[in-house]
Amino acid sequence: MSSYAKPVEVLIDELGRLPGIGPKSAQRIAFHLLKVDRIDTDRLANAIVDLKDKISFCERCFNVSEEAECTICSDPRRDPHILCVVEEPKDISAIEKTGSFKGRYHVLLGVINPLEGIGPEQIKIRELALRVASEDITEVILCTNPNMEGETTASFIATKILKPFEITVTRLASGLPVGGDLEYADELTLGRALKGRQAV
Amino acid sequence: MSSYAKPVEVLIDELGRLPGIGPKSAQRIAFHLLKVDRIDTDRLANAIVDLKDKISFCERCFNVSEEAECTICSDPRRDPHILCVVEEPKDISAIEKTGSFKGRYHVLLGVINPLEGIGPEQIKIRELALRVASEDITEVILCTNPNMEGETTASFIATKILKPFEITVTRLASGLPVGGDLEYADELTLGRALKGRQAV
Repeated sequence: MSSYAKPVEVLIDELGRLPGIGPKSAQRIAFHLLKVDRIDTDRLANAIVDLKDKISFCERCFNVSEEAECTICSDPRRDPHILCVVEEPKDISAIEKTGSFKGRYHVLLGVINPLEGIGPEQIKIRELALRVASEDITEVILCTNPNMEGETTASFIATKILKPFEITVTRLASGLPVGGDLEYADELTLGRALKGRQAV
Repeated sequence: MSSYAKPVEVLIDELGRLPGIGPKSAQRIAFHLLKVDRIDTDRLANAIVDLKDKISFCERCFNVSEEAECTICSDPRRDPHILCVVEEPKDISAIEKTGSFKGRYHVLLGVINPLEGIGPEQIKIRELALRVASEDITEVILCTNPNMEGETTASFIATKILKPFEITVTRLASGLPVGGDLEYADELTLGRALKGRQAV
């Protein structure tokens, strides 16, 4: 790769760190950026900087937010007694689209994955326990992905964290294909899975 | 998508304009950038800005370059009489890796593709004709890709542009890839390999 000019190599290297971008894609994108107008690359660079300037995580639920509390947590019409636990902020968007859930969320910002060295203390499980202890919560729906890591995390939370509390703990109904990804489920399937949730 | 904060949506939109990045990948990358440290996102944004600040195209061959002329054009050890015509700057890197070529390059910055409205005047064909007319070139190797657009472009350059000049015009040999398997070769490739057979 040494035949590229330094700034090209630096960008290819940086792009290659992004999820799902291999060396060939990084190279393709870098040369694309070289060809497009300056105004387009500036828009992209600014969007990246803006993201970090303006967005952080909701102090309560760890959804992405422009304020200290996200729009869902600060919405008085949302039921504060039901909590939907998801892996990532993008899962909230998938569930919101179904229109089947009117409670609040708790984002774990990850999933238990021993192979990648991610244990319960690396994700927002402790914060979930604190919320269940301090807020008036009657039901927790575990909406982690229906794959191995998601199931492990849900089962860990149900048995090790929420057992002491007198609350209903539910899991998304099967109907989602096992080994699948919440993000890619269609609204109908996800909506049905929500309605058919069962006690763990 | 309306449940995301504005800066997140803007970035997803910008990322989605990059080649090979669909809406789902764009979303995944945006949330990844939200999670990583500020220093990492700044490095990426700076790399994009730096690319446009420091890199442009070589005035002679349209390779990427930090100077007016690229390192290959300004290298006195390169043979100025042989020109290798490629579609994109990244193709130069592929050919350089072979160590089999010691001449100079000419980058078309594209390929004739009528379906996308790209004709001969949209790519650097006129500049190639000017070089052949003014520089002391004895051979042009047409190294466009062995697909429909690449073949069309090579054939256009050979017949319409370089015919009047008294120079050798060659095309990359097509045939079976080294290490490949006869059984898995498509008919076209195998046909070409047969036609181009050489005495052992």
